[in-house]
Amino acid sequence: MHIVIAGAAGFLGNKLARTLLDVGTLIGPSGQPEKITRMTLVDVVAPVGFSDSRVEIIEGDISDPKIVDAIIIPSIDSIFHLAAIVSGHAEVDFDLGMKINFDATRQILDRARALGTQPRMVFTSSVAVFGGDLPAKVPDNMGLMPQSSYGAQKAMCELLVNDYSRRGYIDGRVLRMPTISVRPGVPNKAASSFASGILREPINGQNAVCPVSSDTRLWLMSPRQAVQNLIYGHNVDATQFANSRIVSLPGLSVTVREMVDALESVAGTEVTQRIQWIEDDAVKRIVNSWPGDFEATRAKAMGFTADTDFISVIRAHIQDESAA
Amino acid sequence: MHIVIAGAAGFLGNKLARTLLDVGTLIGPSGQPEKITRMTLVDVVAPVGFSDSRVEIIEGDISDPKIVDAIIIPSIDSIFHLAAIVSGHAEVDFDLGMKINFDATRQILDRARALGTQPRMVFTSSVAVFGGDLPAKVPDNMGLMPQSSYGAQKAMCELLVNDYSRRGYIDGRVLRMPTISVRPGVPNKAASSFASGILREPINGQNAVCPVSSDTRLWLMSPRQAVQNLIYGHNVDATQFANSRIVSLPGLSVTVREMVDALESVAGTEVTQRIQWIEDDAVKRIVNSWPGDFEATRAKAMGFTADTDFISVIRAHIQDESAA
Repeated sequence: MHIVIAGAAGFLGNKLARTLLDVGTLIGPSGQPEKITRMTLVDVVAPVGFSDSRVEIIEGDISDPKIVDAIIIPSIDSIFHLAAIVSGHAEVDFDLGMKINFDATRQILDRARALGTQPRMVFTSSVAVFGGDLPAKVPDNMGLMPQSSYGAQKAMCELLVNDYSRRGYIDGRVLRMPTISVRPGVPNKAASSFASGILREPINGQNAVCPVSSDTRLWLMSPRQAVQNLIYGHNVDATQFANSRIVSLPGLSVTVREMVDALESVAGTEVTQRIQWIEDDAVKRIVNSWPGDFEATRAKAMGFTADTDFISVIRAHIQDESAA
Repeated sequence: MHIVIAGAAGFLGNKLARTLLDVGTLIGPSGQPEKITRMTLVDVVAPVGFSDSRVEIIEGDISDPKIVDAIIIPSIDSIFHLAAIVSGHAEVDFDLGMKINFDATRQILDRARALGTQPRMVFTSSVAVFGGDLPAKVPDNMGLMPQSSYGAQKAMCELLVNDYSRRGYIDGRVLRMPTISVRPGVPNKAASSFASGILREPINGQNAVCPVSSDTRLWLMSPRQAVQNLIYGHNVDATQFANSRIVSLPGLSVTVREMVDALESVAGTEVTQRIQWIEDDAVKRIVNSWPGDFEATRAKAMGFTADTDFISVIRAHIQDESAA
């Protein structure tokens, strides 16, 4: 199999690539596990640290038609499209968000359609497609009401991927991801950046700012769990999606206070004292518009899974980081 | 005021233009009724029959940037964007549907944004954004699940108009219209074309084919009511939309059997015997995916209104047609 990962320099794309290289197989066009023989990793900055002979690196912008032509080629069987301008950035730069989050996705879809081979495509969407007056626990059939341009762009892509799949142009799977925590690396422009930063930085001996109140409820998924669900979403039989290729994944519903309590029980008060509580209205406005809990009945019935508790999520983060 | 109606050769755009010329005013940038001094009517075929000095006709395709540049100019205050490739046509010709239903709308939005004057824009969406497993009565916060490319394209535009409004680029109002019946004129490629044809043609002494079963439930609005709600949706204060510029309009929920019974009571069995019942799978697949009843609680609270009964709808149609 030849697979493409767009957004492979991001931590999730990177982790997905490493995991797939380790596992070595995916469900292929035959409907059975097939060997991954070629893996194209594309991002605007070249993904680094891959010495595997199956891997080829393409450094380029997926809004550039030449790059899309170079990656979506007849030999590919599957695409993981994880590239995006994050929420906070897309809110500040509307045109850049439209270009990368929407136009580039459409270009990938059109090129994949032109292949005529109906490649599988896993597309990551977000809880940011929801907003407004929401029930405490969001049901699967909740109406879209994004309160950010990032959410609107993701929702538009959901509709496109679903329609291209319904028409048989591609075999798409849209996974609405919870906020990923604990994300390794450095802070980014996502409004949700703090949801990793308030854990990661204190563990590393650094201070971190929490821009939202401690009773803010978040819908979370660990990096390990996210990679597992991305692979599961790729492999699950298309018929299981029935009327819609869009599925809200299960997650862990916790308040910021519960996250900090979990950190304290793992790492002590010395670590949690490195968190400074300075509210930021721009971040709060976006984050508070996102739902903090979902039913995710459909995803669970399809076999997607969630983390069990946040203490385990923190322990896995510490384990993964010391291994890295 | 200078207003633009895109899709003005269509029966609804045409009827809206005539009504607005009669009424003579709309809520303007001042928030008060202002005189309509200029009305630009644009469509791919020139709207005919307007001799009013306020009217200018532009014949052209709204997917052509030159046409959009010609209509969205600094003097405009309000846009009614009703132009679309209908459901059955967009299902057969995907690329044309994307070009007119989505790309042209985006182009109008971008040009309106560039004006910097935040013009009002009324955009017509459709019940076709819904589908899949639906409750008997669709609530306002129902999730989107279009089962046609037309529905997907309308849903994407809804998200765009809403986000452009949220960002203050325009003052948009998305009205999810029920199926319009009784539409005057001739059959078109809309999957819902029969919902007017099975009444209009028999009244005119012609045969008509009903491609769906008689227990099919439809969500309907008369042309008079539609024009009234388009104007109301333009005039209502922006603050009434609160979290979302998208509103599902109230309508009349009737089965095809009830429509035919109403026709019989108005025009007799001689007329209803001109309906031939020949089911068409392609039409049924699209029409049966649409909801037949809505709560429309929010729209009603905002002051939008519905027809009271289908017999009155038929009588109004006969009256309007004999006047025309």
